[in-house]
This record gives sequence, structure tokens and C-alpha cells, in this order.
Amino acid sequence: MKLQAIEIHHDEDVEDILWGGYRLIQKKKGFRFGVDAYLLANFTNLRPGERIIDLGTGTGIISFLLASKGKNVSITALDILPEMTDLVERSISLNGLANMRVVTEDLRNAAQALGKGSFSTVVSNPPYFPVKSGEHSSNYARAIARTEIMCSLEDLVSTAAQLLNYSGKFVFIHRPSRLPEIFNALKKYNFEPKRMRLVFAYSNTEPNLVLIEARKNAGQELRNLPPLIMYDKPGQYSAEIQTFFKAYREEA
Amino acid sequence: MKLQAIEIHHDEDVEDILWGGYRLIQKKKGFRFGVDAYLLANFTNLRPGERIIDLGTGTGIISFLLASKGKNVSITALDILPEMTDLVERSISLNGLANMRVVTEDLRNAAQALGKGSFSTVVSNPPYFPVKSGEHSSNYARAIARTEIMCSLEDLVSTAAQLLNYSGKFVFIHRPSRLPEIFNALKKYNFEPKRMRLVFAYSNTEPNLVLIEARKNAGQELRNLPPLIMYDKPGQYSAEIQTFFKAYREEA
Repeated sequence: MKLQAIEIHHDEDVEDILWGGYRLIQKKKGFRFGVDAYLLANFTNLRPGERIIDLGTGTGIISFLLASKGKNVSITALDILPEMTDLVERSISLNGLANMRVVTEDLRNAAQALGKGSFSTVVSNPPYFPVKSGEHSSNYARAIARTEIMCSLEDLVSTAAQLLNYSGKFVFIHRPSRLPEIFNALKKYNFEPKRMRLVFAYSNTEPNLVLIEARKNAGQELRNLPPLIMYDKPGQYSAEIQTFFKAYREEA
Repeated sequence: MKLQAIEIHHDEDVEDILWGGYRLIQKKKGFRFGVDAYLLANFTNLRPGERIIDLGTGTGIISFLLASKGKNVSITALDILPEMTDLVERSISLNGLANMRVVTEDLRNAAQALGKGSFSTVVSNPPYFPVKSGEHSSNYARAIARTEIMCSLEDLVSTAAQLLNYSGKFVFIHRPSRLPEIFNALKKYNFEPKRMRLVFAYSNTEPNLVLIEARKNAGQELRNLPPLIMYDKPGQYSAEIQTFFKAYREEA
């Protein structure tokens, strides 16, 4: 790998993401990656040689986690915001990753721009909230990451269906309150939910996240995984969550 | 209440169901009630004065549990098998319940026989397995309780929709592997899933049951409850499950 100077701006920092020893450039203030990305990357099963696209990559965190996890995979990180893809572009250089590229594009045009059926896995940590609900952030990057301003649930599912090959899989994280809508949208675009896991803050609280793997043109049979409990007590991650922050560092 | 002699056959026994002090007549060998009925009755919220129908009542267990739980409710227990409704008829007499009736009917004819829109709550512990899969029981009552020989998932949802009033609720238990199918069938008949709870044998196992409350003509927003864990260790029910077997006995 040829060394090159990567520009880090005064309002940015560089964070070790723990998996693969990769480091990510982020704004000190603004949209920064969170634990959801680790849940999604952990949940995503990858075969060697997969062609992966990460829709709405933001800081690029999921793409980098999967770059660490996958064997001989190629990764396309897509975002609509040039301010985010500029960060990802520099993070790719910083880590010297030859198998990752970043694309600035509205995901609703992604299939046209990148080719229908050209991926084996779509991953996404999409906005969770319909436009009418939820708080509005004064930060635009955070706002479009949280609410469906630029991308409805149906836009996302439709785009994933177009980008995937015949039996491709779509892996994403969302709110359990939207499960019926999610399953109905998946059915509409010929996906079958195959694996699902609910995420609970504590063992006695209502789940606040759900991980889903759907496959195109698959038979009916949903596998539900054991509950994923985030915390043993306030401020202390459960033993399982703690492994999420370690596993791939040790392999690296 | 006028005392009357209730016939108990030599191949039957009488079991205390714990709630309300009610007792149920069952075949010693054959289809007997299980813990699923307690999960469903516990999950079912009832307002005073509800008109309830229990589709595929079997031994009548869910109807008797709800008769104990509900205030001023009326209950119709429906089953296709005369051998089951004969048991339920005698259990009703045994317990002197004036607000419960039993009907022998194919549920696909239930709306025609009992009147469209004439109930506020439909409950059901339906067959979990499609006809092609699962073991086949040599016992016919058990077979039609387990597999969708006489009643597909769509038959059940369609019947519930017909029997319920405008904002009526449909509360049932099923297999989590069929959640996508369940949500799609509910949408087709204008139900919206409003509450859901996954049931796990242990805190680290995959869920094997799901409790669902759907409402006709309701807005989108699914509430997911905390995980329901059945056992602390083999043979020992969790503290929560233990309350299911006590609460209504104490109130009685």
C-alpha cells in the first residue's frame, strides 16, 4: 500500500471502529455512528465473494465493519449527501481499502446508476421515522438519517429489490413498531423475511430495534432468533453485546 | 344455581383450571389443554361487557379462563367437532355459567350462523402447522387442532374479520415462523397488528410462540412487549409464568 497524506479537517476526528483495526473520519459535531451499526453488521451473514451495497451509508461505518467481516467481498457505500461521501472517500483512503468504493447518489436512482441485479447483499440502517412524526433535527445530515425525508420505507425496499440478484438478500435494522408495514412492503417487492431478531434494552423492557434478513424469491419460513439484550444494568453492556465490540479486533 | 347431575364418562376426568375455581371435563386420553391457553388468556385485554367468541375452542379452556377474567362478558365457544362441544356443554353446566354458550359449527360458516359484526373480541388458539408439514396425529381431534386441515390461517383471519364489529379486536397465538404470513393476511382483511409478544422457552433460545392483538380499521403502530420467558431452568417456570397460574385463583 502506497502511503498518502489524508486530509483531516479541524472539525473532524478519527475513531478506531475496533473491527479490523479500521479507523473512520467523522465530524466532531454532527451525525456520528452508533451501536446500531454493530448490531446490523453482527447480524449480517456473508459468504465469500459477495457484492455488497450499503444504502445510506452515512459515516460509512457499516461498510467498514462488513469489510472487516467479509472474505473477498466488494463493497459499495452509497449516500445522497456529498458531505458524508467526502468523509467516506477519505476514510477509504485512510484504511487503504481497495475493495470499497463510495457513490454519491439518491438511492431512488441507484439501480439505474449502478445496474439492476448487480449485488448479492443490500444492507441498510435507514431512517426509522415517518416524516410526520419524531423530532426534527436542525442538523440536515442527522435529520435525513432519522426521518424519511429523502427515502420512505417503500423506496428503500423497492430499491433493494432492484439492486439485488435473483436470490439476493436484504439485511436491515428498523423499529419493531413498524414490523407490519415492513413485512407488507417486503411482500410487495417479492422478498420473504427469513431471519429476524428483536433487540431489547433490558430483559424486561419492550424491544426498540429489530434486525431483519429478507431474501428475494424465497419460500415462507421465518427464523426468529433469541432476544438480543443490550444492557445488564445502566451503562453496562450485556456479555453478548460486549463480544460485538471485540470479535473482529482479535481476528485482525 | 340449581344443582344438577353432570355426566362424567369413564374415559374423562375433571381438572381445576385454577382461574375462577372453574373445572373442565377432558378426555383422559386425547386432546387436552396446555399452557398456550394461559398465555393467550393472560395476553387478552378485556373491557367490561365484551361479546367474545373463541374460534376452535377445543376443551373450552380459553373461554373458561376469559369467563374468569372478564367482567360482565358473554362468551361463545365454537368448535367443529361434536365430541369437543359435548365436553364444553357439560363443563358449562358443571360450572353453572350463564354467560357462556357453545356452538358446533365450521368456523367458515360462523358469520352466517352467528351474525356479521356481532362480537367485540375474537380469540383463537388455531392450528399452527400448514397441512403439508408437521407430524400427523392418529387422533382426529388433536390432528385438526394442530394442522390446518379444517381451517387455514386465511380462513381464520377472514372469519374473525366478519364476526367482529367495526373496531373489534382479534387476539390469537401462533408460531413466530409464520409472522410474515400472519401480517399479510391481517392486512388483507383490514386488521392492523397493535400488540405483539414473543414467547421464548429460555432467555437464550429462539421464540416458539407469538401472541398478537390486531384491530379492525386501526392506525399503524405496533406495540411490542418485553420477551416472555417460560422457564428459568428445565421443569421450573419463570416467576412471570408462575403468576399466570395463580392470579385469578386468588381473585376468585
